[in-house]
Amino acid sequence: MNRSNVTYMKISEKTGLSVSTVSRALKQPHLVKHATLKIIYRAIEELGGTLPDAVAPMTHDMRILAIVPVFNNPFYTDIVLGIQDAANQNGCQLLIVNETLSKFNIHQIINFISQSNISGVVIMQKLEIDVLDQLKLRTPLVQCSEFNEVNDISYITIDNLEATRKMLRYILNAGRKQIALVNSDPARYTYAKLRLQGYCETLEQAGITVNPLHIVTVPDGNFSTAVSAISALLKTASPPDAIFCASDIMAAAALRACALEGFRVPQDIMVAGFDNIDISVMTTPNITTINQPRHDMGFMACTQLLSMIADPTKLPQRFILDTELIIRESTDF
Amino acid sequence: MNRSNVTYMKISEKTGLSVSTVSRALKQPHLVKHATLKIIYRAIEELGGTLPDAVAPMTHDMRILAIVPVFNNPFYTDIVLGIQDAANQNGCQLLIVNETLSKFNIHQIINFISQSNISGVVIMQKLEIDVLDQLKLRTPLVQCSEFNEVNDISYITIDNLEATRKMLRYILNAGRKQIALVNSDPARYTYAKLRLQGYCETLEQAGITVNPLHIVTVPDGNFSTAVSAISALLKTASPPDAIFCASDIMAAAALRACALEGFRVPQDIMVAGFDNIDISVMTTPNITTINQPRHDMGFMACTQLLSMIADPTKLPQRFILDTELIIRESTDF
Repeated sequence: MNRSNVTYMKISEKTGLSVSTVSRALKQPHLVKHATLKIIYRAIEELGGTLPDAVAPMTHDMRILAIVPVFNNPFYTDIVLGIQDAANQNGCQLLIVNETLSKFNIHQIINFISQSNISGVVIMQKLEIDVLDQLKLRTPLVQCSEFNEVNDISYITIDNLEATRKMLRYILNAGRKQIALVNSDPARYTYAKLRLQGYCETLEQAGITVNPLHIVTVPDGNFSTAVSAISALLKTASPPDAIFCASDIMAAAALRACALEGFRVPQDIMVAGFDNIDISVMTTPNITTINQPRHDMGFMACTQLLSMIADPTKLPQRFILDTELIIRESTDF
Repeated sequence: MNRSNVTYMKISEKTGLSVSTVSRALKQPHLVKHATLKIIYRAIEELGGTLPDAVAPMTHDMRILAIVPVFNNPFYTDIVLGIQDAANQNGCQLLIVNETLSKFNIHQIINFISQSNISGVVIMQKLEIDVLDQLKLRTPLVQCSEFNEVNDISYITIDNLEATRKMLRYILNAGRKQIALVNSDPARYTYAKLRLQGYCETLEQAGITVNPLHIVTVPDGNFSTAVSAISALLKTASPPDAIFCASDIMAAAALRACALEGFRVPQDIMVAGFDNIDISVMTTPNITTINQPRHDMGFMACTQLLSMIADPTKLPQRFILDTELIIRESTDF
């Protein structure tokens, strides 16, 4: 900032904050609450000063928090490894907690953030709006994978619609017409809503009427539940000739259900997944899937967060990352 | 303690610690370093006083740290869920960091522990002795799964020798004699050393000479590396008729290698794993394995840690938990 005309005292008078808080905000911004920094930076601009233009140097004590909603889901652990790599490259410590945020635990988390000198937070879930409002007031925040469709939050995600269309067009081109969808709960997860939409749109564009009996919802995406639900589908009078699953876990369940019910994959039924987590290469046949760049998503989420910490006036940014169709044995013969 | 004859002042004089530290240690032991508590409690005993006999009440701000060496290994994430359940039931917050502890990062972790008011730590790796010495001076500590064979550390583990014998006897009873072992690095991991020992002993007791060509080491237990190593084994002049793997990940790799090389499981080759993680039920055939009670291991590790925090004079305890042989399709037909 231009200290010749905008003194700490002037900023203090304008904001009502103490001179020592103003001083700390400009010298050690990572020690000061995000909302306070915003107030100070706005005051500097209104007083005609210039903001610090260099990124504040990171200290080795800076701490980033990743809040993981389902700790033993490998999809999230791979994102966390990306966050960790970006944090470590910038000399930050990454802390991880295993919590699904809600109005019941948000105060505990906010207390923890302030007591533990947490500089910023990456979350991997969509929040209730009032929970999101409370959290974003207290800390710089980036959403990764799942996100809220509001204007003032940065997030990193993938194009779920386009990824789903890509997979469905591939299966249609392979000659399959009776394509089932095994999905998580579209009312709860944005990704599930978009994959359902992409499934319906692509079939309709191909002139195929969506068969409601071929849409199976496994609310929590659990393997055993999915095996039961898909086995039931395979026992009906009109089993599908392909199954597109909204996760690799559910695709592994589809392979298992096909084996139990005596269908050959891919000859009788093609099976495809989503995510490209480790399980997709461990089964036989291994699983055709959509690669989500999980490490990159985590890395970019943390990088974005660090730039927001360094410059609290930074506007929210959204990053929609590319996905890839990976063809393996479960659809290819 | 018996306050009538042992005052804070007497303890302060004997230990050289301030009266306020002594007071805090007895009223809020979770706020005081473990080593300091030990000094104070020893002084009370030497002065003829009695120690606090009730467990100190936990506060909601108490924090436990789990240090996970391989964050995306499901074996560890299941242990962490057990730690989390015990922590939450006792009103504690669980923090998780993803670090393999060594002399290169131990100071950073120790700084973090003291700055963040961490009351105790659960680790899941064997440490170099000087690293262990530094850590145990600074915090109550419990080892879970892997451990150091020293006298003054509490740990929770399983009986690896007995579990391995149980599996080998089962495979021998099924009539297989050419049993290969696919193991992690016995020089690095205690569990791998014990499973190698159990394998050799059980074969020798059955009158079978161990064939060194049938012992395959996959240092990091990586899936793809294991597929390559096991495929090479299957291409030799004398392939095994059973493969016992020291993890379910490597057993999944054995299934994959058998499929690639044209061996039927279990008809031509039986395959068995270890751990009972999710992957063991997701493959076809699903995998015969040894159940490690991972959730219980984590839960007990945290419970033990909380009792050490409440009573720093508590002697180290070791818990060796039972395992179970779970027979599935990869050995059964």
